[in-house]
Amino acid sequence: MLELLSEHACFGGVQRFYRHESTATGLPMRFSAFIPAVPEGQTLPALFYLAGLTCTEETFATKAGAQRVAAQEGLILIGPDTSPRGANIAGETEAWDFGAGAGFYLDATEAPWSKHYRMFSYLLELHALVIAELPVNAAKVGIFGHSMGGHGALVTALKRPDLFRSVSAFAPIAAPTLCPWGEKAFSGYLGADRDSWKQYDASELMLAMDAPFPGGILIDQGLADKFLEQQLHPEAFEAACAKARQPLNLRRHDGYDHGYYFISTFMEDHLRFHRAQLG
Amino acid sequence: MLELLSEHACFGGVQRFYRHESTATGLPMRFSAFIPAVPEGQTLPALFYLAGLTCTEETFATKAGAQRVAAQEGLILIGPDTSPRGANIAGETEAWDFGAGAGFYLDATEAPWSKHYRMFSYLLELHALVIAELPVNAAKVGIFGHSMGGHGALVTALKRPDLFRSVSAFAPIAAPTLCPWGEKAFSGYLGADRDSWKQYDASELMLAMDAPFPGGILIDQGLADKFLEQQLHPEAFEAACAKARQPLNLRRHDGYDHGYYFISTFMEDHLRFHRAQLG
Repeated sequence: MLELLSEHACFGGVQRFYRHESTATGLPMRFSAFIPAVPEGQTLPALFYLAGLTCTEETFATKAGAQRVAAQEGLILIGPDTSPRGANIAGETEAWDFGAGAGFYLDATEAPWSKHYRMFSYLLELHALVIAELPVNAAKVGIFGHSMGGHGALVTALKRPDLFRSVSAFAPIAAPTLCPWGEKAFSGYLGADRDSWKQYDASELMLAMDAPFPGGILIDQGLADKFLEQQLHPEAFEAACAKARQPLNLRRHDGYDHGYYFISTFMEDHLRFHRAQLG
Repeated sequence: MLELLSEHACFGGVQRFYRHESTATGLPMRFSAFIPAVPEGQTLPALFYLAGLTCTEETFATKAGAQRVAAQEGLILIGPDTSPRGANIAGETEAWDFGAGAGFYLDATEAPWSKHYRMFSYLLELHALVIAELPVNAAKVGIFGHSMGGHGALVTALKRPDLFRSVSAFAPIAAPTLCPWGEKAFSGYLGADRDSWKQYDASELMLAMDAPFPGGILIDQGLADKFLEQQLHPEAFEAACAKARQPLNLRRHDGYDHGYYFISTFMEDHLRFHRAQLG
């Protein structure tokens, strides 16, 4: 089922990299898993971290500095890849914001992408897989992510709050139907009908809900983030949360940009937030 | 003097990348600098971190997770590159363990390397430069590193304990004259006379000294490190320290390998060790 590619001792636990055959994407997929020392027979809460454009299953494990607190809090960390790889679609690797490395965590409906680019279904498949194969407590799984992955985390949690019980994000693409990245990706993957885009827009989804996460949602946003104004639109998600009576802790940080120096600074807060939410 | 290439807010301080013209190497060099929030007019202790084979000035800043504790402890972190770049020597970039990315922190004496590959002199130049240009307390500078950089840190500290007042290492090449990496590099940079190699071998240097660091030296070594047996020889350095009455805390860790998952696990211990040594 799972092929272990490598394993590294880390903060008393293990940082692993796995490969497996995915039904959802029809291709082999890779993911990272940090597993703290687990007493025999016990399961732990787990967090999915969805990375941003151009990233892989390695990015979070190498750059975010999350393992220290995960070891302290007893959290398993799952880092999926950001798209299928090797679908052999013409132009798949030509753009950094569409195709390989830019799956946007949705199920494409437009050919030729619709055959393999099914990352939303893949996340559900991986959720079931890690519960079956790793010492994950099925009732205590949360999700978070960065930029495109922040979009993915919010959308996935809002669509499946039964599976993902806590959610947070760093600098998410919070209203993709309103920004150039989202317009390009959704046009390509979902086609011209903008109504079909709304199912993958966290702000649109939230407008139709009634406080799906009563314990709150945490978002950190740097104010020196060069993508903030044109691409991210946290204010749209903030307005949608207000309308949905969804508690939101949207923290705006002077001077911080879009990268992992920002993410690593606030990583500990996110891990402790999820641990508290998951109980 | 210093050209600021980029700056990123990080743990309340700034992670910077600089370029400058080096007299020692005769080429432009890059380095990273993490600078915690510094009260106006105050200086802070600083640590040089020397990275290993194939690394650059970015490796430590992105993968080691050191900024959190450095911000807590008020430590500036300086990350030099691992060799000159762009010397345009035939074959310079062909091997991963010699030439670019593999400067071994020594001053080459063999042509054509002797013109630019002068990393030992470069470290002294950079030491003076950061004291002149950054809020570094000249009396409180330490040095540490990993693998080839662990070798570099030990050798540099033993040669210039007046400049570098504390020293530690992760999985250092502790006796380069005894291992294939060292034999290849020292033959190429220093020539066939093995006597000339001893000045850059930490174990040889220690044998001629009398407890140069009375406060101790800290070394962490993973026991699942695939380079341990053939390349690293911590036991040679341990024996030399015993002979020199040099206090050494050589910690051997079951299960840990040679990479940054190992380094990040024990980074906090090293930063607190240096902070205590530097007073």
